Amino acid sequence: MTRPVFFVSDGTGITAETLGTTLLTQFDSVEFKKTTLPFINTVDKARSTVEYIDFLAKTGPRPMVFSTTVNEEVRAILRTSSALFTDLFDTYIHAIENELGQESSHASGQAHGLRDRRRYDARIAAMNFAMEHDDGQSTRDLAKAQVILVAPSRCGKTPTMLYLALQHGIFATNFPITEDDLEQQKLPKSLEGLADRCFGFTSDPERLHQVRTERRPGSKYASLAQCSYELREAERLYQRHNIPYVSTATRSIEEIAAVVIQEKQLER
Amino acid sequence: MTRPVFFVSDGTGITAETLGTTLLTQFDSVEFKKTTLPFINTVDKARSTVEYIDFLAKTGPRPMVFSTTVNEEVRAILRTSSALFTDLFDTYIHAIENELGQESSHASGQAHGLRDRRRYDARIAAMNFAMEHDDGQSTRDLAKAQVILVAPSRCGKTPTMLYLALQHGIFATNFPITEDDLEQQKLPKSLEGLADRCFGFTSDPERLHQVRTERRPGSKYASLAQCSYELREAERLYQRHNIPYVSTATRSIEEIAAVVIQEKQLER
Repeated sequence: MTRPVFFVSDGTGITAETLGTTLLTQFDSVEFKKTTLPFINTVDKARSTVEYIDFLAKTGPRPMVFSTTVNEEVRAILRTSSALFTDLFDTYIHAIENELGQESSHASGQAHGLRDRRRYDARIAAMNFAMEHDDGQSTRDLAKAQVILVAPSRCGKTPTMLYLALQHGIFATNFPITEDDLEQQKLPKSLEGLADRCFGFTSDPERLHQVRTERRPGSKYASLAQCSYELREAERLYQRHNIPYVSTATRSIEEIAAVVIQEKQLER
Repeated sequence: MTRPVFFVSDGTGITAETLGTTLLTQFDSVEFKKTTLPFINTVDKARSTVEYIDFLAKTGPRPMVFSTTVNEEVRAILRTSSALFTDLFDTYIHAIENELGQESSHASGQAHGLRDRRRYDARIAAMNFAMEHDDGQSTRDLAKAQVILVAPSRCGKTPTMLYLALQHGIFATNFPITEDDLEQQKLPKSLEGLADRCFGFTSDPERLHQVRTERRPGSKYASLAQCSYELREAERLYQRHNIPYVSTATRSIEEIAAVVIQEKQLER
């Protein structure tokens, strides 16, 4: 008995999806079939959506709709479906209008559109910077980095860097810590004078062993002994150079990024 | 009179931020000072948060709080602040509990944590694939791509590819369209037999001219004539090979990604 869930919006649907998914994670034992319907911005599209939802409602469990549709005409039609209708705008916008003493603009697709061009261009610039500097491949303008992620191979530097850049417009980059660095307990030469920009990652030896084994099965690089050694020495290096660090073993990219932003007080 | 806004959560704060930001985009003329407070997961942290909010409330306009805090004890404390308190959980969770006939799990940090390891690993695998294949730098396993973004230089291929991979776990890659390709009206050789995976980007000549000028000012590459030519011929190429395409000139990465997913019916 899979429950159909629709995230409906006249924009990208990202807010509806984020909101709805968050609420549904609280119901672990229910199976949901999730569909995002972006750009439902005409009366015709709204009517087709309702028809489809009503068709499903006749043959299975009642569908659920999470909507961030701003257009009132479209919303009025969506609301007539037989689904459980959760409407972000109707619920909150009136309280906020009252608080701010003004009416909302009723403009669609603002949240994930090109509304703030300056912020958008910053994200693209941050992404270009990240791509150019990934894994220490360039040291040009390294001082422009707001944060430099350092860690042994396969601890999550690259995905976290890209997330910080793409999502938040943060100038982030990353640098590998090699065995030479670990032996000498020194930061890579290119990072001299930049220790205050650095943030370290560590992991769990078992987890790192597993991740590296997928890449190079049976290698010394992937061995549990090598993983333990590198992580232990990396932590010692971070402590020695006063670099804050976090274990990425049981954290998602989003969680790691939130920790980095908080600890380094990064301006977004 | 900047209005302080706090996105508060016992998790990453991403949902609270997405929800709150979306609502606030409806009030263009108000200036907001936004702060995300993640990991507010203890009574002590909640009390400090309330103290800070109440302090601000005494000296300026009333703060606003958007909360997705699941922990009830923490939430009860946050609720005592003098801010306008918008509580995602309280508002919706009861209606959903009723609909599903079961209580919510009250587990914190589920939405952006490592709850679904399989989906999470897919995102990381997609990101590695994207990084390896960016801008046609590798043709290995190209047939594994769910979508291949094609376009002349600087039309937004790389950021869209990374967003599709990192956010949705979609195996995406991208390939540049060169002048030779345009002249011969042929797809690049490595893409032979893969036209059905391709999705094309076009842009506005003025916009492309502007973006390329930032990169190589005064070059033929950046000239308006060259940009016009490449875009016109690229569109002709897409049409000839039945490749769907979209203009990226006035769309955000999120909007472009939503169009690509919808048009190509990509499985996430």
